[in-house]
Parts: sequence; structure tokens; C-alpha cells
Amino acid sequence: MFTHIVSPRFSDIDGFKHVNHLAIPAWFESGREFLYRIFSPEYDLDVMQLILVHMGVDYLNQMYLGTEVEIRTYTRKIGNSSFHAYQEAWQRENLCAQGDVVLVHFDFQTGKSMRIPEDYRRKLEEHLYPEP
Amino acid sequence: MFTHIVSPRFSDIDGFKHVNHLAIPAWFESGREFLYRIFSPEYDLDVMQLILVHMGVDYLNQMYLGTEVEIRTYTRKIGNSSFHAYQEAWQRENLCAQGDVVLVHFDFQTGKSMRIPEDYRRKLEEHLYPEP
Amino acid sequence: MFTHIVSPRFSDIDGFKHVNHLAIPAWFESGREFLYRIFSPEYDLDVMQLILVHMGVDYLNQMYLGTEVEIRTYTRKIGNSSFHAYQEAWQRENLCAQGDVVLVHFDFQTGKSMRIPEDYRRKLEEHLYPEP
Amino acid sequence: MFTHIVSPRFSDIDGFKHVNHLAIPAWFESGREFLYRIFSPEYDLDVMQLILVHMGVDYLNQMYLGTEVEIRTYTRKIGNSSFHAYQEAWQRENLCAQGDVVLVHFDFQTGKSMRIPEDYRRKLEEHLYPEP
Repeated sequence: MFTHIVSPRFSDIDGFKHVNHLAIPAWFESGREFLYRIFSPEYDLDVMQLILVHMGVDYLNQMYLGTEVEIRTYTRKIGNSSFHAYQEAWQRENLCAQGDVVLVHFDFQTGKSMRIPEDYRRKLEEHLYPEP
Repeated sequence: MFTHIVSPRFSDIDGFKHVNHLAIPAWFESGREFLYRIFSPEYDLDVMQLILVHMGVDYLNQMYLGTEVEIRTYTRKIGNSSFHAYQEAWQRENLCAQGDVVLVHFDFQTGKSMRIPEDYRRKLEEHLYPEP
Repeated sequence: MFTHIVSPRFSDIDGFKHVNHLAIPAWFESGREFLYRIFSPEYDLDVMQLILVHMGVDYLNQMYLGTEVEIRTYTRKIGNSSFHAYQEAWQRENLCAQGDVVLVHFDFQTGKSMRIPEDYRRKLEEHLYPEP
Repeated sequence: MFTHIVSPRFSDIDGFKHVNHLAIPAWFESGREFLYRIFSPEYDLDVMQLILVHMGVDYLNQMYLGTEVEIRTYTRKIGNSSFHAYQEAWQRENLCAQGDVVLVHFDFQTGKSMRIPEDYRRKLEEHLYPEP
């Protein structure tokens, strides 16, 4: 599990005075940086070969301006060429949103998925979500 | 079905020279304006009582700068107090992304869901996705 | 002059129920697409050699959800290697924002500015702002 | 002076593999949170009475993914009802962008500017840019 702290921006708030639904996938993207660095330690776009093929978010409680949000990021379902990142957003000790993205190790030249190397797989497994 | 045309913005493109995954839910939000206007013809934030509780997107094909994208929006699973908007993004005659959001008719004062009025329901039904 | 119509998105509105200041430079970016296509008719990132070195926006009147915004885009101060795009945002017949960006014809390989070719310059001049 | 650290997001990078110009004003907005809290310690939208009337950014050097950016925020030109926030973005010890926003103490009910209270003014003055 990796933890990342976010302060909602003024522009993340919408006309209902809560965090807009579009802000949260952006926070989740920031929270996945450590996963991207498994595929490229320098976070180098010419090295990192990952494509996002699915995103899902459940919005459980409204979030507001003025209080920090904790983003918790885990891995899940590590397959041959893909894996899931499972993420949670907590504000004031409430689970406010949870999301899932599916990432594929992908060769942009050939347009084909690639097998995740064993050493990357082991690093991904260090962050596995403890399934209940 | 409602159709909305989007031109990818320069800033929608990411370091992989394709449309970033975060741009697409923003396009889908624009495509749902006609649904929001069922709940408030003036699109007035003090009248419109809807909250988004789920979003899911499948990214099927990469999209690029320079060619328009057609967003197609349908309704689905119209329940007592909630309904789904199902949306597709097409570029160069390819289905590139499809997504689903769940919207709840919601009283922000009491924090409770509300029954969708019959006249709104009938308007939502005019845009039902033709389930195969 | 080039005109582009924008519908404010729900997520463009902030907690003051007006359009957030960050939405407007994004609309202006969309409005400049025709200028970018002078430098690359296909809007191709591998061909278009422009870098943005300055942006300024004056926010004159608040803008709101529910009414379209007209973005008007002109060129100004066309120099050897740079030019200005001057832009206005109009809602309900009010000038609500005006902005300026400075764009430089730029070689990303050498990191140096380049002279704007004569045929591009002539096309830029077709959209010159009528200075009072 | 107030310092705020930002990690560029994957989606902040554009097709030129550098930070898109639109990302920087969003980082600057985050960097101004401590100023907003002078006007509302809880960062409460119903209390904070500020409107942004001008934004300008000079882009001096390209910024990239993978290295943190330091945002430095100062105040400047504190007037009767308005003040400037002057901000810098530093990456790898290079000044990469500098910007200015003008904020007005504003009554959203009457649509009129208001005099900045003395105690707020003193707090703003603690962060004055040391003019050369």
C-alpha cells in the first residue's frame, strides 16, 4: 500500500460545493506514480510501457474543500500482461471514493500487450490488496 | 440517443501522443448536458438535484489529436431514484471508449435520494439504449 | 477572426457557482486550433513547431453555467519568430474575459526559435485584430 | 514566501513531452491556499470573499515528468481592496515559470469590491516579495 496526501484545489470544487467527480481520477493518477516507477524508475515516457484500458470509480461520500484527502493505492489481480490498481480516497476518516484501473504492459510500436517481467511482478506484489 | 461533437484539445493529449484517459470523462460530462436539462431546463445548479455515484470507462482504442470525436449518450436502467447514462466515443468510425455513470436524484439538504418524477422519467426513456 | 462556441461544463463551475478561472484558458486553447493548423494542417504534433511562452487573461465579468460562450480569436504583433493570439470570451453579449498568448515558432531539437515562413505569416495576417 | 511541492502528473504532460501550459496555473492555485486561508482560516467557500480578476504566466523553461517542482508564492502591491500574488515554479534549480494573479476582496451579493481588513493586510504583508 502506498499513501499520497492531496489538498483539494479551489478548482476541484464544483457548483454543489463538493469535490467534482472528475477531480478524483486525477488524484488517483498522482497516487499511482510509485507503480509507474516500477516500469520506469525515472518515470521516463520513452521507457514506461503501460496503457490504461479501464477505469471505474464509486463515489461513496462527498468530499469538501479545506481538509486533506489521503489516497491509498494497492495492486490487485496481477496477470500475465495486466494488473489492477485499487485505490481509496479518505477524508476525515471516511472512505469517500474507491476506484480501480486496469493497466496493460504494452508495446506502443507493435500495438500488442507484453508479458510483465518477473522483477516488476515481484515489486507489484509487494503492494497487493489484502483480499478479505 | 444524443450526439455531441468534440475536438480534442492540445492539452488533452499526453506524453504518449494519444488522448489522456482523463479527457474522456470530461467529454462524457459535456455529452450529458441534455440529461441534466431534463432535471433543470435552465441547467440551474439551484434546481438540478442529481449526484453522480459511479463512473466506469473502458478504453478500447487510442484517440488522437486532429480528428473530431463523436460522443453518443443513451440512458439505461432507469430505476426509482437513479438511472445510468451509457456513453460512447467514436473517432474515425471506431468505437474508442465506452462508459457508464450512475446518477441519483438527490436532495442535498437531507442527503437522501428522491423518486424520479414521472415526467422526467418519460423524457429519460426517450433516450433508452436499444439493449441487444 | 475565428469564432468558436463553447458550452460551459458542469465541472468548469466552481464553488462560487461561476466559471472557474482555469476553465477559460482551456477554452482559449480550443479556440486557437485554426492557428495551430496554419503550422500543421493535420494538427500533427510531429510537424507543429510552436511553443507557448506567455499567457495573460483579464477576467472582466463572471460567466455561468447554462448559456453558450463565444470565443473570438485574432492574431496580433506578428514578429520574426513569434506572434500573439488575442482572444475574447463573450456570454449573453457581454465581454467576460480577454486574453493574450505569445507563441514562438520553435525547434524542439535545437531549443531555438525559428523564423516564421512567409506563407504562414500571410495566413496569420488574415486574422489580425483591427487595432483601434 | 510560502513553498509548495508538486509532482507533475502523467496527465500534466502533453504531446511535446513537457508540462502543458495549463497545468502550471493549477499548481499556482494550489500554492495560494495559504493566502486564501487568511480570508477564511477554514478555507470555507461561504466565508472567503475573493475574486480573481487577472492571471499572467511567463513560461521560461520547459518542465518535465519525473522531478518535483517547487512553487514559491509571495504577495505584492497590496492595495485598498486588491493584492497580487506573485509565484514561481522551480524544477532542477531552474526558474521555469513565473506568474501573477490579481485578487480582489469582493462581495458576491452586491458585486462590489471591499476594503481589505487591517488584520488580513498585516498577514498578507508577511509574505511580501522583496522587490529588488
